[in-house]
Amino acid sequence: MIYNVQIKVMPLKELLDPQGKAVIGSLKNLDINNVQDVRIGKHITLQIEAENENAAKKIAETTATKLLANPVMEYFEIEMIN
Amino acid sequence: MIYNVQIKVMPLKELLDPQGKAVIGSLKNLDINNVQDVRIGKHITLQIEAENENAAKKIAETTATKLLANPVMEYFEIEMIN
Repeated sequence: MIYNVQIKVMPLKELLDPQGKAVIGSLKNLDINNVQDVRIGKHITLQIEAENENAAKKIAETTATKLLANPVMEYFEIEMIN
Repeated sequence: MIYNVQIKVMPLKELLDPQGKAVIGSLKNLDINNVQDVRIGKHITLQIEAENENAAKKIAETTATKLLANPVMEYFEIEMIN
Protein backbone atom coordinates (compact mmCIF):
# COMPACT_ATOMS: atom_id res chain seq x y z
CA MET A 1 0.00 0.00 0.00
CA ILE A 2 1.08 3.57 -0.59
CA TYR A 3 1.21 5.90 2.38
CA ASN A 4 1.41 9.66 2.27
CA VAL A 5 3.70 11.01 4.94
CA GLN A 6 4.50 14.60 5.89
CA ILE A 7 7.78 15.56 7.51
CA LYS A 8 8.21 18.98 9.07
CA VAL A 9 11.83 20.04 9.64
CA MET A 10 12.16 23.18 11.78
CA PRO A 11 15.11 25.08 13.29
CA LEU A 12 15.60 24.20 16.97
CA LYS A 13 13.66 26.48 19.31
CA GLU A 14 16.84 27.54 21.14
CA LEU A 15 18.45 28.82 17.95
CA LEU A 16 18.01 32.10 16.13
CA ASP A 17 16.35 31.75 12.75
CA PRO A 18 17.95 34.38 10.49
CA GLN A 19 15.60 33.60 7.58
CA GLY A 20 12.59 34.22 9.84
CA LYS A 21 14.14 37.44 11.16
CA ALA A 22 14.58 38.64 7.57
CA VAL A 23 10.88 38.00 6.91
CA ILE A 24 9.90 40.06 9.98
CA GLY A 25 12.08 42.90 8.65
CA SER A 26 10.45 42.73 5.22
CA LEU A 27 6.97 42.67 6.80
CA LYS A 28 7.77 45.95 8.56
CA ASN A 29 8.62 47.44 5.15
CA LEU A 30 5.17 46.33 3.98
CA ASP A 31 3.60 48.07 7.03
CA ILE A 32 2.63 44.79 8.67
CA ASN A 33 3.72 45.24 12.27
CA ASN A 34 1.70 42.68 14.19
CA VAL A 35 3.74 39.61 13.27
CA GLN A 36 5.96 38.94 16.28
CA ASP A 37 7.83 35.81 15.41
CA VAL A 38 8.56 33.93 12.21
CA ARG A 39 10.37 30.63 11.91
CA ILE A 40 11.04 28.97 8.59
CA GLY A 41 11.67 25.31 8.04
CA LYS A 42 11.10 22.65 5.42
CA HIS A 43 7.94 20.78 4.63
CA ILE A 44 8.42 17.46 2.87
CA THR A 45 5.75 15.11 1.55
CA LEU A 46 6.69 11.52 0.78
CA GLN A 47 4.83 8.71 -0.94
CA ILE A 48 6.06 5.51 0.63
CA GLU A 49 5.20 1.99 -0.45
CA ALA A 50 5.06 -0.22 2.63
CA GLU A 51 3.19 -3.17 4.13
CA ASN A 52 1.65 -1.19 6.96
CA GLU A 53 1.62 2.24 8.56
CA ASN A 54 4.36 1.41 11.05
CA ALA A 55 6.73 0.29 8.33
CA ALA A 56 6.03 3.49 6.36
CA LYS A 57 6.67 5.60 9.44
CA LYS A 58 9.96 3.84 10.04
CA ILE A 59 11.11 4.56 6.48
CA ALA A 60 10.11 8.20 6.92
CA GLU A 61 12.11 8.36 10.16
CA THR A 62 15.20 6.91 8.48
CA THR A 63 14.82 9.39 5.61
CA ALA A 64 14.51 12.33 7.99
CA THR A 65 17.42 11.25 10.19
CA LYS A 66 19.85 10.33 7.42
CA LEU A 67 18.97 12.89 4.79
CA LEU A 68 16.53 15.66 5.60
CA ALA A 69 17.27 17.02 9.06
CA ASN A 70 20.51 18.21 10.58
CA PRO A 71 20.19 17.36 14.32
CA VAL A 72 22.64 20.11 15.33
CA MET A 73 20.27 22.80 14.07
CA GLU A 74 16.92 21.18 13.35
CA TYR A 75 14.24 18.89 14.75
CA PHE A 76 11.64 17.00 12.76
CA GLU A 77 8.07 15.80 13.17
CA ILE A 78 6.43 13.05 11.15
CA GLU A 79 2.72 12.92 10.39
CA MET A 80 0.81 10.25 8.47
CA ILE A 81 -1.82 11.74 6.15
CA ASN A 82 -4.09 8.81 5.19
CA MET B 1 -4.40 37.97 21.52
CA ILE B 2 -1.53 36.06 19.96
CA TYR B 3 -2.31 33.46 17.35
CA ASN B 4 -0.01 30.74 16.10
CA VAL B 5 -0.36 30.22 12.39
CA GLN B 6 1.29 27.66 10.12
CA ILE B 7 1.85 28.30 6.44
CA LYS B 8 2.81 25.48 4.12
CA VAL B 9 4.32 26.57 0.80
CA MET B 10 4.67 23.74 -1.71
CA PRO B 11 5.73 23.50 -5.36
CA LEU B 12 2.69 23.32 -7.67
CA LYS B 13 1.57 19.75 -8.39
CA GLU B 14 2.00 20.21 -12.14
CA LEU B 15 5.65 21.15 -11.79
CA LEU B 16 8.72 18.98 -11.39
CA ASP B 17 10.39 19.34 -8.00
CA PRO B 18 14.15 18.93 -8.63
CA GLN B 19 14.97 19.08 -4.90
CA GLY B 20 12.58 16.19 -4.26
CA LYS B 21 14.02 14.23 -7.19
CA ALA B 22 17.50 14.69 -5.70
CA VAL B 23 16.28 13.25 -2.39
CA ILE B 24 14.85 10.17 -4.17
CA GLY B 25 18.25 9.68 -5.82
CA SER B 26 20.08 9.94 -2.51
CA LEU B 27 17.62 7.51 -0.90
CA LYS B 28 18.50 4.93 -3.55
CA ASN B 29 22.17 5.33 -2.59
CA LEU B 30 21.13 4.56 1.00
CA ASP B 31 19.32 1.41 -0.22
CA ILE B 32 15.89 2.82 0.51
CA ASN B 33 13.89 2.00 -2.62
CA ASN B 34 10.28 2.19 -1.51
CA VAL B 35 9.92 5.97 -1.51
CA GLN B 36 8.16 6.81 -4.75
CA ASP B 37 7.68 10.54 -4.63
CA VAL B 38 9.21 13.37 -2.64
CA ARG B 39 8.18 17.00 -2.78
CA ILE B 40 9.92 19.67 -0.75
CA GLY B 41 8.45 22.98 0.26
CA LYS B 42 8.65 25.48 3.07
CA HIS B 43 7.00 25.32 6.46
CA ILE B 44 6.58 28.67 8.19
CA THR B 45 5.22 29.32 11.66
CA LEU B 46 4.06 32.83 12.55
CA GLN B 47 3.06 34.43 15.84
CA ILE B 48 0.51 37.08 14.97
CA GLU B 49 -1.04 39.59 17.34
CA ALA B 50 -4.61 40.23 16.26
CA GLU B 51 -8.08 40.91 17.64
CA ASN B 52 -9.59 37.67 16.44
CA GLU B 53 -8.81 34.55 14.44
CA ASN B 54 -10.10 35.98 11.18
CA ALA B 55 -7.89 39.04 11.44
CA ALA B 56 -4.88 36.82 12.16
CA LYS B 57 -5.70 34.62 9.16
CA LYS B 58 -5.95 37.69 6.93
CA ILE B 59 -2.50 38.89 8.01
CA ALA B 60 -1.10 35.41 7.36
CA GLU B 61 -2.65 35.43 3.89
CA THR B 62 -1.13 38.83 3.08
CA THR B 63 2.25 37.61 4.33
CA ALA B 64 2.07 34.48 2.21
CA THR B 65 0.92 36.29 -0.92
CA LYS B 66 3.30 39.24 -0.75
CA LEU B 67 6.37 37.60 0.70
CA LEU B 68 6.48 33.85 1.15
CA ALA B 69 4.98 32.17 -1.91
CA ASN B 70 5.74 32.65 -5.59
CA PRO B 71 2.40 31.96 -7.33
CA VAL B 72 4.10 30.98 -10.59
CA MET B 73 5.70 27.98 -8.94
CA GLU B 74 4.10 27.49 -5.54
CA TYR B 75 0.78 27.26 -3.71
CA PHE B 76 0.22 27.80 -0.01
CA GLU B 77 -2.08 26.55 2.74
CA ILE B 78 -2.76 28.31 6.02
CA GLU B 79 -3.62 26.52 9.24
CA MET B 80 -4.44 28.06 12.62
CA ILE B 81 -2.84 26.14 15.50
CA ASN B 82 -4.63 27.35 18.67
